[in-house]
Amino acid sequence: MLKKIKISELKNYYGQEVEVQGFVDNIRNIKWVQFVILRDETGKVQLTIEKSNEENKELVAIVDELTAESTLKIKGKVIENPNVKLNGMEIIPSSIMVTSKNESEELPFNYKDLDNVNLDTRLDYRFIDLRNPKNAFIFQVQSTLIKYMREYLYNNDFIEIHTPKLIGAASESGSEVFEVKYFDNPAYLAQSPQFYKQMAMASGFNRIFEVAPCFRAENSNTNRHATEFTSFDIEFSYINSFHDVMDLEAEMITYGLQKLKDELGSKIKELYDIDIVVPTLPFPCMSLKDIYKELEERYNYKVAESEMKDLTTEAERLVARLAKDKYNHEFMFVIDYPAEKRAFYHMRNDEGVLQGYDLIWRGVEITSGAQREHRYDKICQVAKEKGLGKDVEFYLEFFKYGCPPHGGFAIGVDRLTMLLLNIPSVKESQFLFRGPNRINP
Amino acid sequence: MLKKIKISELKNYYGQEVEVQGFVDNIRNIKWVQFVILRDETGKVQLTIEKSNEENKELVAIVDELTAESTLKIKGKVIENPNVKLNGMEIIPSSIMVTSKNESEELPFNYKDLDNVNLDTRLDYRFIDLRNPKNAFIFQVQSTLIKYMREYLYNNDFIEIHTPKLIGAASESGSEVFEVKYFDNPAYLAQSPQFYKQMAMASGFNRIFEVAPCFRAENSNTNRHATEFTSFDIEFSYINSFHDVMDLEAEMITYGLQKLKDELGSKIKELYDIDIVVPTLPFPCMSLKDIYKELEERYNYKVAESEMKDLTTEAERLVARLAKDKYNHEFMFVIDYPAEKRAFYHMRNDEGVLQGYDLIWRGVEITSGAQREHRYDKICQVAKEKGLGKDVEFYLEFFKYGCPPHGGFAIGVDRLTMLLLNIPSVKESQFLFRGPNRINP
Repeated sequence: MLKKIKISELKNYYGQEVEVQGFVDNIRNIKWVQFVILRDETGKVQLTIEKSNEENKELVAIVDELTAESTLKIKGKVIENPNVKLNGMEIIPSSIMVTSKNESEELPFNYKDLDNVNLDTRLDYRFIDLRNPKNAFIFQVQSTLIKYMREYLYNNDFIEIHTPKLIGAASESGSEVFEVKYFDNPAYLAQSPQFYKQMAMASGFNRIFEVAPCFRAENSNTNRHATEFTSFDIEFSYINSFHDVMDLEAEMITYGLQKLKDELGSKIKELYDIDIVVPTLPFPCMSLKDIYKELEERYNYKVAESEMKDLTTEAERLVARLAKDKYNHEFMFVIDYPAEKRAFYHMRNDEGVLQGYDLIWRGVEITSGAQREHRYDKICQVAKEKGLGKDVEFYLEFFKYGCPPHGGFAIGVDRLTMLLLNIPSVKESQFLFRGPNRINP
Repeated sequence: MLKKIKISELKNYYGQEVEVQGFVDNIRNIKWVQFVILRDETGKVQLTIEKSNEENKELVAIVDELTAESTLKIKGKVIENPNVKLNGMEIIPSSIMVTSKNESEELPFNYKDLDNVNLDTRLDYRFIDLRNPKNAFIFQVQSTLIKYMREYLYNNDFIEIHTPKLIGAASESGSEVFEVKYFDNPAYLAQSPQFYKQMAMASGFNRIFEVAPCFRAENSNTNRHATEFTSFDIEFSYINSFHDVMDLEAEMITYGLQKLKDELGSKIKELYDIDIVVPTLPFPCMSLKDIYKELEERYNYKVAESEMKDLTTEAERLVARLAKDKYNHEFMFVIDYPAEKRAFYHMRNDEGVLQGYDLIWRGVEITSGAQREHRYDKICQVAKEKGLGKDVEFYLEFFKYGCPPHGGFAIGVDRLTMLLLNIPSVKESQFLFRGPNRINP
């Protein structure tokens, strides 16, 4: 039996008989000859069927009935032919089997030219939208980047755990949590694995990560929010401060981008005209206060004192410019936030300064990280101050019997992918986007 | 600044000053000397503090107040000392910092001796239960096995995708699906990524996998069922039959077990007294009918004709014996099931025989795989016969515009881990078990 050959590898098989499978990308049926362009996930190739050749009678009859977007299994000889525009080669098929037939006269839209196709239509027929090679490639890039970020973690003694998404208490912030009918009681969908990552620390797991869905019942429509998204979550123990967390994150991202560039850099350039910039270490790091100072001095950007407790969306954008101008870097750690607006489990010092950071890439926050409060008396006190009640009781228990100092961070995978390939919205960088008005297909 | 050293690596630092962090495993405070046993995830080491040494005054005071299960950061010199039972070494600390204090006089139970501890109590305090080194090790094994199964797939042109868990239709089998309050409408939790794996095939993705949670609203209490579990899901295109699916699964499992054995085999032997058996390829494969025939001939096991449409639980157990006796193998593929009881998306031949398989390992079904029905007219027909209505309409659409022949399988990660380490129940092989009566912590 012939082994199926990837189209990108056909150039190694000139003069040989091969088996190729794929979608019918295009058919040209002219007087003397039929051309079928076959497409797999690695490329396209031309099949040439001469009508004058008596032996081709059956093949000609098959192609006469063929519709574009059907799928084929063909056998044939690979011929080098400089006259063929497509890769300078063709296959002279000896057999063609139609493995599935596109039953419709027309696709819901032309996925090869998406410029004038409404995004909602594309998402309604996402399975057609993803036939566009540029769109499909997004997920090869995403998978490859995650593969290498995982590799970095495995190499540094991390293990991956799988924490439950069904939880018994509404936890972190009740308003944005989805309720589930769990037999006779309500349950909820985890907004993040935060509490369980920390449980692992209290159990002595030391270094863990998880790549898994998170759920947010947030009724907002932006280009970077979704009700379900994939989160790359890390937590590790025995840190000296949140600077250890920043260092690890910077190293992991740098490792991932370097390896991604090695493996897919030229194809990213070809399809997206983007050069992956592998960052230098350490990443630049500035305090929130200094950033606002420099944004004013350099770019004349001013905000009211009351807004200076966080980065405004515009300030985030300008931080990208500042990172470039001041450090020739794409990344910037921002530190020294006031802790008051942050989650209660983040450590704060006695002056109320967050022992954590945000990481800005290309003008968007891609991650928040921090040392966590691991001391039982302190975490109980902050929970009380924030008015958190029964919902966090189970979590506070984790710290009662000793728990090492620890910290961690989370990266939104869809948002990271969006920024990496300069895609306008997570609606396109998620395999299937989920938003307040989008739950199908 | 001293770098934190793992306890298992201390033997490389004799005579040197090191920093070590961990939990206080035990304290012996006797007349002339204090012994503190420190534990990290790699092992234990003794700290020795001589009371007679005037320089130790502060350290002695700290240890006088110390409680077991608190966490420490210590600096000190590593000394080889054959008189010390524990690894023949000790650390003479120069500083001890208590990084967190166990506030309670007693733990909820003694995690070092779980024989008489009720499983529910252990699960109520899972964060204590996981301090047991044998229990914690489960997740190192699980992470390592998944790492290598992923590696096999990456090496074979697979990418990992992330499909939504929030779905708009109750889909596969309405009765076992959790309902979510999704803004003003109901949504549901995916029982499996099956439909979306196949959507990827219709989009031309060719080879994909996903490791992600699945949800089943099944009100049953067995040792191998959970309402949420981690599923390792694979789907790939351009197969010739379900035998291609079996071949890939057997290779992936063999690769994973070989690499797992290389990396953790001796520690698995030490903690669980289990020798990982790396299977030989190909795995044995028998038809359901032949299996019942041989079970009767060999072991005098008979079932009524009406039960022969599937393997009974007892037959599953006996298949392990048959695999051993007949093939000297731990695995067995079982094929030629009647398709009637299987999901509608599995391909069946004209005689109604399932074009798929179950894989039995050590007497338990760990996976089901199949070629899927990819032909639009056929899949519509089966859906109609099974009385499936509006809920699967979106899914049927995937096949309307051409879709290559494809197949795949799913492995329950928790069940696999349970069998691998001979753990009695998935309640213990899940990081945090979820069942009808268990949603906390």
